[in-house]
Amino acid sequence: MVVKVYGPNYASPKRVIVCLIEKGVDFEVVSIDVFKGENKIPDYLQLQPFGHVPVIQDGDYTLFESRAIMRYYAEKYRSQGTELLGKTVEEKGQVEQWLEVEAHEFSPPVHDLVIHIMFSSKLGITADQKLIQESEEKLHKVLDIYEERLSKSKYLAGDFFSLADLSHLPFLQYLMDPLGKERMIRDRKHLSAWWDDISNRPSWKKVLQHCPPPNLS
Amino acid sequence: MVVKVYGPNYASPKRVIVCLIEKGVDFEVVSIDVFKGENKIPDYLQLQPFGHVPVIQDGDYTLFESRAIMRYYAEKYRSQGTELLGKTVEEKGQVEQWLEVEAHEFSPPVHDLVIHIMFSSKLGITADQKLIQESEEKLHKVLDIYEERLSKSKYLAGDFFSLADLSHLPFLQYLMDPLGKERMIRDRKHLSAWWDDISNRPSWKKVLQHCPPPNLS
Repeated sequence: MVVKVYGPNYASPKRVIVCLIEKGVDFEVVSIDVFKGENKIPDYLQLQPFGHVPVIQDGDYTLFESRAIMRYYAEKYRSQGTELLGKTVEEKGQVEQWLEVEAHEFSPPVHDLVIHIMFSSKLGITADQKLIQESEEKLHKVLDIYEERLSKSKYLAGDFFSLADLSHLPFLQYLMDPLGKERMIRDRKHLSAWWDDISNRPSWKKVLQHCPPPNLS
Repeated sequence: MVVKVYGPNYASPKRVIVCLIEKGVDFEVVSIDVFKGENKIPDYLQLQPFGHVPVIQDGDYTLFESRAIMRYYAEKYRSQGTELLGKTVEEKGQVEQWLEVEAHEFSPPVHDLVIHIMFSSKLGITADQKLIQESEEKLHKVLDIYEERLSKSKYLAGDFFSLADLSHLPFLQYLMDPLGKERMIRDRKHLSAWWDDISNRPSWKKVLQHCPPPNLS
């Protein structure tokens, strides 16, 4: 049974796809154009009542929320592909902690930058310069804490690669390229080395080849 | 070894405490007064670099982010106390999905109501009436989806109580009482029955007895 991933050319579905590649799970993608409102049609809302991407269908099992989907596959195929949850319950606790940090500290300011720098013309909104500045300031503080953390361990949850690192890839990639904020990463030695490490994984290179960023024109 | 919970009179630490009670894990609380800035002093930032509550210390193991802590104890003591993760990997997937929905759909609008209705005078800010109205509108839409979901299963992740339900308790409690938004729950039949069920658990009653809401004066 091939897993269907609805998305896939946005940040959250890419989180799921890079996880499936790391776990060696076959999948196919179903295109959902959020800018055309395809996420708000009744058939899609049957799968994801909030109208967000991604959703997966795996036989008759449906699941949404990217980090829930990642956890599901990391656990279902624990002994297949890359171990992404740590080896002990204590290591897993650290993975969960940094996954939550990604969701609640790192991603919200990047999300605001994505909306107001990348997507403002596509969305027909005026970029809010004050919000952009505040988001950058917040992000600098968060990345200072990451730099300190990564000076003590190779990856976020410890000296092992995990879902916590992987979950950062889509928004880090946006920071590097379309957002033009490469310096926020490059000016921090340990953060920069960590980015080079995780973004050079074959799984992420495959995602970039097969899932281009959303069409901004 | 008794678990130390730093908080504890705010919504996020209560999520951890109700989980520890359900799992039968002994704990003690360490008071952190956020309004006095006790979450920003260097000793505390050593434990939680972002300056948020809660943190736990369990011997020499330290963990922060309330939902990560809940997952850690639910898994570490899987066979002790209430099973909170479901029985199969598929059930656990649903638990994770609704935990993420709580974090990303339900809690953000409630958080804005908490800041601008409950805490505005304490924080010395002017309550933003437009934001209050928008947050209520968002929350109504979210609760409509919960009502639909709870018309099909007794709890959020299925016909079993789990972390996904438990994680909603602190903010649902704020909606009921200090926020005066009881009707948002009571006007929805299945949501109302679910609230009565989960808020009448002995674990939650203990939390309310021992962890009063923050002092608003």
